[in-house]
Amino acid sequence: MLNVGVIGTGMIGQDHIRRMTTVLSGVRVTAVTDVNPAAAASVGPRIGATVHASGASLTADPEVDAVVVCSWGPTHEEYVLGAIAAGKPVFCEKPLATTQEAGLRIVEAEVAYGSRLVQVGYMRRFDFAYRRLKMALDSGDIGIPLMMHCAHRNAAVPPFYEREMAITDTAVHEIDMVRWMFGTEIEAVRVLVPRRNSNGGELQDPLFILLEMANGVLVDVETSVNIRYGYDIRGEIVGENGTAALGSLSPVQIRRGGQLATPVPADWRERFLQAYDVEFQEWIHAITGGGHPLGPSAWDGYAAAVVSDAGVAALRSGDRVPVTMATRPKLYDEVPS
Amino acid sequence: MLNVGVIGTGMIGQDHIRRMTTVLSGVRVTAVTDVNPAAAASVGPRIGATVHASGASLTADPEVDAVVVCSWGPTHEEYVLGAIAAGKPVFCEKPLATTQEAGLRIVEAEVAYGSRLVQVGYMRRFDFAYRRLKMALDSGDIGIPLMMHCAHRNAAVPPFYEREMAITDTAVHEIDMVRWMFGTEIEAVRVLVPRRNSNGGELQDPLFILLEMANGVLVDVETSVNIRYGYDIRGEIVGENGTAALGSLSPVQIRRGGQLATPVPADWRERFLQAYDVEFQEWIHAITGGGHPLGPSAWDGYAAAVVSDAGVAALRSGDRVPVTMATRPKLYDEVPS
Amino acid sequence: MLNVGVIGTGMIGQDHIRRMTTVLSGVRVTAVTDVNPAAAASVGPRIGATVHASGASLTADPEVDAVVVCSWGPTHEEYVLGAIAAGKPVFCEKPLATTQEAGLRIVEAEVAYGSRLVQVGYMRRFDFAYRRLKMALDSGDIGIPLMMHCAHRNAAVPPFYEREMAITDTAVHEIDMVRWMFGTEIEAVRVLVPRRNSNGGELQDPLFILLEMANGVLVDVETSVNIRYGYDIRGEIVGENGTAALGSLSPVQIRRGGQLATPVPADWRERFLQAYDVEFQEWIHAITGGGHPLGPSAWDGYAAAVVSDAGVAALRSGDRVPVTMATRPKLYDEVPS
Amino acid sequence: MLNVGVIGTGMIGQDHIRRMTTVLSGVRVTAVTDVNPAAAASVGPRIGATVHASGASLTADPEVDAVVVCSWGPTHEEYVLGAIAAGKPVFCEKPLATTQEAGLRIVEAEVAYGSRLVQVGYMRRFDFAYRRLKMALDSGDIGIPLMMHCAHRNAAVPPFYEREMAITDTAVHEIDMVRWMFGTEIEAVRVLVPRRNSNGGELQDPLFILLEMANGVLVDVETSVNIRYGYDIRGEIVGENGTAALGSLSPVQIRRGGQLATPVPADWRERFLQAYDVEFQEWIHAITGGGHPLGPSAWDGYAAAVVSDAGVAALRSGDRVPVTMATRPKLYDEVPS
Repeated sequence: MLNVGVIGTGMIGQDHIRRMTTVLSGVRVTAVTDVNPAAAASVGPRIGATVHASGASLTADPEVDAVVVCSWGPTHEEYVLGAIAAGKPVFCEKPLATTQEAGLRIVEAEVAYGSRLVQVGYMRRFDFAYRRLKMALDSGDIGIPLMMHCAHRNAAVPPFYEREMAITDTAVHEIDMVRWMFGTEIEAVRVLVPRRNSNGGELQDPLFILLEMANGVLVDVETSVNIRYGYDIRGEIVGENGTAALGSLSPVQIRRGGQLATPVPADWRERFLQAYDVEFQEWIHAITGGGHPLGPSAWDGYAAAVVSDAGVAALRSGDRVPVTMATRPKLYDEVPS
Repeated sequence: MLNVGVIGTGMIGQDHIRRMTTVLSGVRVTAVTDVNPAAAASVGPRIGATVHASGASLTADPEVDAVVVCSWGPTHEEYVLGAIAAGKPVFCEKPLATTQEAGLRIVEAEVAYGSRLVQVGYMRRFDFAYRRLKMALDSGDIGIPLMMHCAHRNAAVPPFYEREMAITDTAVHEIDMVRWMFGTEIEAVRVLVPRRNSNGGELQDPLFILLEMANGVLVDVETSVNIRYGYDIRGEIVGENGTAALGSLSPVQIRRGGQLATPVPADWRERFLQAYDVEFQEWIHAITGGGHPLGPSAWDGYAAAVVSDAGVAALRSGDRVPVTMATRPKLYDEVPS
Repeated sequence: MLNVGVIGTGMIGQDHIRRMTTVLSGVRVTAVTDVNPAAAASVGPRIGATVHASGASLTADPEVDAVVVCSWGPTHEEYVLGAIAAGKPVFCEKPLATTQEAGLRIVEAEVAYGSRLVQVGYMRRFDFAYRRLKMALDSGDIGIPLMMHCAHRNAAVPPFYEREMAITDTAVHEIDMVRWMFGTEIEAVRVLVPRRNSNGGELQDPLFILLEMANGVLVDVETSVNIRYGYDIRGEIVGENGTAALGSLSPVQIRRGGQLATPVPADWRERFLQAYDVEFQEWIHAITGGGHPLGPSAWDGYAAAVVSDAGVAALRSGDRVPVTMATRPKLYDEVPS
Repeated sequence: MLNVGVIGTGMIGQDHIRRMTTVLSGVRVTAVTDVNPAAAASVGPRIGATVHASGASLTADPEVDAVVVCSWGPTHEEYVLGAIAAGKPVFCEKPLATTQEAGLRIVEAEVAYGSRLVQVGYMRRFDFAYRRLKMALDSGDIGIPLMMHCAHRNAAVPPFYEREMAITDTAVHEIDMVRWMFGTEIEAVRVLVPRRNSNGGELQDPLFILLEMANGVLVDVETSVNIRYGYDIRGEIVGENGTAALGSLSPVQIRRGGQLATPVPADWRERFLQAYDVEFQEWIHAITGGGHPLGPSAWDGYAAAVVSDAGVAALRSGDRVPVTMATRPKLYDEVPS
């Protein structure tokens, strides 16, 4: 039974608490904290968790074996570094850090510690369909990969959503996914700006993002964040001899009113609910099994930040922007399966 | 250039005239007639065809190489026998005859004539999808066939449609199709009566028809003739090692309003338009090429009538009704490909 | 935390132990027993569970809050009655009992007890796709249901599989599912025997089973248990205005070698893995939440046995066999959602 | 009956002769010629067509109402100008001309003549699926278009295929199609070079072509010309509220060996056979109906040449290349439906 402390009891934090309390095996939430003490206080007693006044206090709690960070992005660095300092495994919701410099400091702290403690919450690596896609690729059936076409579509985004967020918050999932899918880094980014969707008012949406990978694979990502019809994640890998694509997950097919229709997920919760469960369950099993987390590492979090920065620069300049990364420490040599 | 005379210039007759006049190659309509002289008179001059006062006169016209019969069902026997007597190829819209006795008389007349002159208008044998289905079956890929599941759905039928027509007018297409698909006869028929669809008022609809074939294949056919959503023809053959089914012909896929949808055809014209064209074009080429028609024969028309009669008896009695057929003359030994 | 005792540590029992130990939340396995003491002894210590010499002893253990019965079918009655006598919730793998008389005895014991303790392991009611199908039906979008077409296909069955098992072991899942789907009982059964699949030697396979429901819905079920290509569960409900069908769960689509292909599940574990998880998780939450199990009841288990018996009689006689059931006690009036 | 003269009796020419002789209505081939007199001589007598020594002679033949040009690309300009000079309708296989200058000369000649005589052989505008796609777009159901994702995949290309041909011979179909689909011109072209497919040896394949349209729509086109698995044409339009895509034309679905598969067309003949038929039939009807051809015009042929040139420049330079076109004469104002 893994004792987990949760920093940040907002929407995401509460969802992970629900997950660890009522869905997953081998875990309990023993401690919570939040920048808003009342928020933590309303959650803790209900699940029998100690309410801490700070992340530092929570991390130091001997009843906390591992830490889950769901707080506001800019605070992630502090809490993750704190967990590393305490030698405790830490699951950090994306982003690992809001700047690549902060990400690199976390990487360096973990390297100094000497083994992997950090996992970043990119859930796609745990999605059934993406895993089958990677299996298809790795089987060699379609040959060496040459391109990948992706689309990331949201029905709607809130008013505070800004154009850069299509890269840093939306396409960042694709950025992590393709690094994992192809086992190599992204070397350059371009961002093209198609005709604007008036559903988003003045928001520059959609974007068309081009990622050049170190092995020559060219990835294109459409982000459409106000497309109304639903939440739709698409991906097709073009290989030398064929292609492999995410299928359409259609549990039912309705024939009615002149058409054959299958429902599209309404939002990311519906599409990736199971992936979040798997992500946490595997993380719990890895830690209680005595190993280290096998999911996205601190290096992956850092790399996502670097590529995102390049993407934002590419969006602003209109140019092709090369990605410049630190040298990857040996600690991260193990390729996640 | 084949000179064709058309008997019956109603809706179907005019559609075939349009087909032979503006779509197909190697044919012209040189003569027309109709039980309603004004109907024929309004069509003939426009296309440069002689207007005849009777089917007999049209058949005798030396400018008529082949006859197309699109008149009222009960008159088919007379016109087809007339064409056989004149030694002219005749394309007869379904049904070949309205009783099995009449069908047998046509068969006997053709056998006496000594070679095949008659083709019956069952268009599914010419449909691209059914042909691919038969190719898949004949390839052996799914093994020996054991069952076939069919559905025949219409959006709506007119008020004069009676329950027996679900067999004689609707499922008769499946009756002909499975005889062709499996190359064997139907030996017995059962008809089950599910809950009634109130869209059709008192009409007993849907029906569930079970056909036992001579080789042991069991075919089930759902007929739903007031199902509103469109015209939908389904078929799946179950073999020893797999299945082969009609696919969904979806030229477009629309993602909108929470669903991924493809259009369903509105009616049989839309679904089988191309099959009708191919049916006639192959008939024309067969005749002008000096051979005989390769489509559904007089025997096929007779067999459809016999099985339909058994189906009607099964519907009325609720029993399994064996099919009793005459012995097939050698003239019909050639298996259509 | 629910303490569960497991009777029967064979393949299914061990799988449920794995599920309760490493997958689900709020449960632990505290006791095990098996007709083969060595089998139980090899499992118990590993998971910290007491090994009992008998089901009776396990049921009486104060460290057992609820019982899971995974033993050989003929022993189910004894263990379930024992749990009822002890007033403990019991999850019984299908079948509830091997005769309808035994099933009725369980129903009567539960009625005498006065509240529901028994859940039977029909997992389809917990399958994501079937639930979406029922939602589509209940939404009214396709109108009142009239028919349902089902297919239940296995790649292969072991040599001891006999023709009656296509009803009692295979189609029994459809029997339970349609009772739940349409909220009504099955009134009569017919079984038709198509051409035999030689993959199964002398086994009479496939079968075509026709179920008449009390509301007039006609259900047909193809069972093909040696069809080689995979495990495939199909279902399409025909309503007055449209149809609703199980979709194809294709996580990936591969274009290669002249075709576009999606994988078919290899077996029932792959297809229904998640349904088993949901089934147990909801059972655990229902009990620990203080309510009674909401899944298939003792009555459902009894009804499945009665219909199966009718099916076997129909297979042997070739006749339509009416289903004769006891009157349903009020205890089972609550319609499961 | 339209009398057609065919210039060029190579593979394409013979296919169109077959089409006009045995498939289509209202047309006959009365004259043929070829740069290789023996080729023309072997075709003409068989179909009752006069064999001419030159295109000029054929065009001047009073038995020729309209000209079909299927000769080697560099000769197209001469024959098309000749037909315009003779005031005869001319169907010119793509490309209209091998340079944009030649294309512009044809446009100017046609404008000087005063009405439209020229149709260029871009068949996609006549394809059933593309037409349904355009109908879906024009219906407004997905809102204003913002992007279009295309893929053009060939199983293999011959050894003489050079990288520029991916633009001038392959993607030129998409270039014409998107101009028609969106009713606007292409303003700039970029070409990205993904990892090379070793199936093509040193050939730079695939390419990823980006087309910026005057209305802001961004089009991306993957060309993969040695992808082995088949001929696959894909297209998805992204609108403000949804998307519309070419469906998968799967006449059959085979379940076998662990997968559900539908066949992919082997080559462009299989995919677009029907579109070629429709293209010619509509051309014939337009001319014999007294109107002018409604298909791709001389202007469309010129525009395709200009955009192709920009594409080749973009491929060679790696830069974004603006498209510079002449001003469109009023003759071409009519928007094709």
